[in-house]
Amino acid sequence: MSVETSPVPFTAEDFAQRMARAAEQAEAAGLTGILVTPGPDLLYFTGYQPIAITERITLLALHGGRSPSMIVPVLERPDAEAARGAPALTLADWTDGSDPYAATTALLEQGGRYAISDSAWAMHVLGLQEALPDSTYVSMTSTLPMLRAIKDADELERLAAAGAAADASFEQIAKGQFAGRRESEVAADLARFLRTHGHSEIDFTVVGSGPNGANPHHEYGERMIEEGDMVVLDFGGIKDGYGSDTTRTVHVGEPTDEEREVHEVVRLAQQTAFEAVQPGVECQVIDRAARKVIDDAGYGEYFIHRTGHGIGLTTHEPPYMIEGDTNELEPGMCFSIEPGVYLSGRFGVRIEDIVTVTAEGGQRFNNTRHELQIVA
Amino acid sequence: MSVETSPVPFTAEDFAQRMARAAEQAEAAGLTGILVTPGPDLLYFTGYQPIAITERITLLALHGGRSPSMIVPVLERPDAEAARGAPALTLADWTDGSDPYAATTALLEQGGRYAISDSAWAMHVLGLQEALPDSTYVSMTSTLPMLRAIKDADELERLAAAGAAADASFEQIAKGQFAGRRESEVAADLARFLRTHGHSEIDFTVVGSGPNGANPHHEYGERMIEEGDMVVLDFGGIKDGYGSDTTRTVHVGEPTDEEREVHEVVRLAQQTAFEAVQPGVECQVIDRAARKVIDDAGYGEYFIHRTGHGIGLTTHEPPYMIEGDTNELEPGMCFSIEPGVYLSGRFGVRIEDIVTVTAEGGQRFNNTRHELQIVA
Repeated sequence: MSVETSPVPFTAEDFAQRMARAAEQAEAAGLTGILVTPGPDLLYFTGYQPIAITERITLLALHGGRSPSMIVPVLERPDAEAARGAPALTLADWTDGSDPYAATTALLEQGGRYAISDSAWAMHVLGLQEALPDSTYVSMTSTLPMLRAIKDADELERLAAAGAAADASFEQIAKGQFAGRRESEVAADLARFLRTHGHSEIDFTVVGSGPNGANPHHEYGERMIEEGDMVVLDFGGIKDGYGSDTTRTVHVGEPTDEEREVHEVVRLAQQTAFEAVQPGVECQVIDRAARKVIDDAGYGEYFIHRTGHGIGLTTHEPPYMIEGDTNELEPGMCFSIEPGVYLSGRFGVRIEDIVTVTAEGGQRFNNTRHELQIVA
Repeated sequence: MSVETSPVPFTAEDFAQRMARAAEQAEAAGLTGILVTPGPDLLYFTGYQPIAITERITLLALHGGRSPSMIVPVLERPDAEAARGAPALTLADWTDGSDPYAATTALLEQGGRYAISDSAWAMHVLGLQEALPDSTYVSMTSTLPMLRAIKDADELERLAAAGAAADASFEQIAKGQFAGRRESEVAADLARFLRTHGHSEIDFTVVGSGPNGANPHHEYGERMIEEGDMVVLDFGGIKDGYGSDTTRTVHVGEPTDEEREVHEVVRLAQQTAFEAVQPGVECQVIDRAARKVIDDAGYGEYFIHRTGHGIGLTTHEPPYMIEGDTNELEPGMCFSIEPGVYLSGRFGVRIEDIVTVTAEGGQRFNNTRHELQIVA
């Protein structure tokens, strides 16, 4: 057990400010308002997380010039009232057996144009479209992609702490045994270390050994790790409400020249993309920076995913470092830089840090070394 | 550790049959096809569950007279190919940086009418609407609510086993200590017992003591349980892929006459609703049967939720036992019957069993006794 202090919880005033800022951004984007459903958006604005996300609609409506209102199933009302952000909004409810969409659209404007949370259920967006056919709906990410992207000082502190906890977990795992153990055993150790270092939720513990490392979305399996294997370790979760996500690729015993070369290409790509981070730079420029290094080294066709994704209340959110994304980086944004090379049937290499944008450039929240580490 | 045998996995042939049956049902309902996104629907049809449900679209399209096709992000293709149902479908993929909705709508028909999974992300349904504006989309539950509702023999076996495991967990918890322990401690015991009895996932462990029991969606807190408390215990999760969900209300020490009376009203309501289960009976009739008993006893205003919900791959799905639902029960359907009475600020009582419909009537998957049990 490590001794860690918990951060001070966000207050009703913090949530009120977030909601007011979002309503302003919505107006500036030509929207009537924002519709927020359970998940990270709702947690961000109200601190409220229903016991489960179900077919029963819960919806927060933010409009410029009006106070925020939220409708919940009546039987979840006591939980909603207990949320830290509840004092900053007007609560309504609906009862099983009544029409939830009629009740919900009563909070909305006829002919309005609304952005709705990306992960809102299709049945709810279709229900709103039917109940209020004159209004139009667009996805949050297509309209206000950066709604939660700029982190304030309290959020940055939590993300830094989550990153440090992930780093400490990597240092522990790298000291342990790999050869002769199954991927699943190493993954269980990783999860345990993350919990020891304060994670309340483990989102993924990828242990991709040998050919499994060449599948970027392999999590872990029962393959026995052997001397001579490359092993991709990509792990993260939630600590004090905020995410961690880091990847290091280690080698069991002495690597071949080719393995060293591929690792070095990926290391250089990651470093080059990191050095490109500056306020005002387009997201796609970060992707291009990493991709150019890998292309130039002749491995372009083996880098089969985007370079990075944002992180905050979730381990996967805007901004996305991807070709075609022209959003500009701003101080306080946090995202992964994680180029990789995947040689099908043989091995894979990926190196990933969480990076935040400062006025001066990028700052890493993961700081374990990037050189290819030899493990036992 | 209990010794339990694992059921035989579903085969590609099982999945092919499910997909063919669904395509027929879609045609019969006047649909062009069915669009299935990650979650329980996709698991049901293909056995495939992506590592995470993200903003990257994965979609299975089922059309009458065409073989099933599924599109996945290219980096998740190896996982999709490894799914048990993969041999029964044609796989396509899309790459980061390309337009995923253009790629997805290539599988669909212009001017088609499609039902889409309830929990599909809003951003995906909005993206499809924009990419294929001549097609229309409706929610799965509004069109084909019973798509997964009728369980086959293998599924019923799994649900019965999950119910028996939940019952065994209740028997263990009821023998333990309540007075002087926190709700969270009892909840942790419940979770441990469920795992011991083969659950791989714990969905909820409600321990609502005293006034907390009067909030039907209270999960558990740090309240110290006392002599004289009613305690609502509502718990369940997933065992071998299928759900459990049962509730019993116990009393710490000797109950008052009022507590006995309320419990007896709920017991009678649950039994009456159970006895109403027959093929051909409308779902709302089950709700009415329970509600009438509680109304007649003068507690109608304190029964503030529907009587039940379906269960299968999830612990919350159609059919719903609720006023206004005229779907008829059919053999093989499985759902909860869970009336309750909630006296705000004082205590609550709920009794819940999972029930399946047979040709002869209802059959319970939960079989611990219903009489008010006194605990220590």
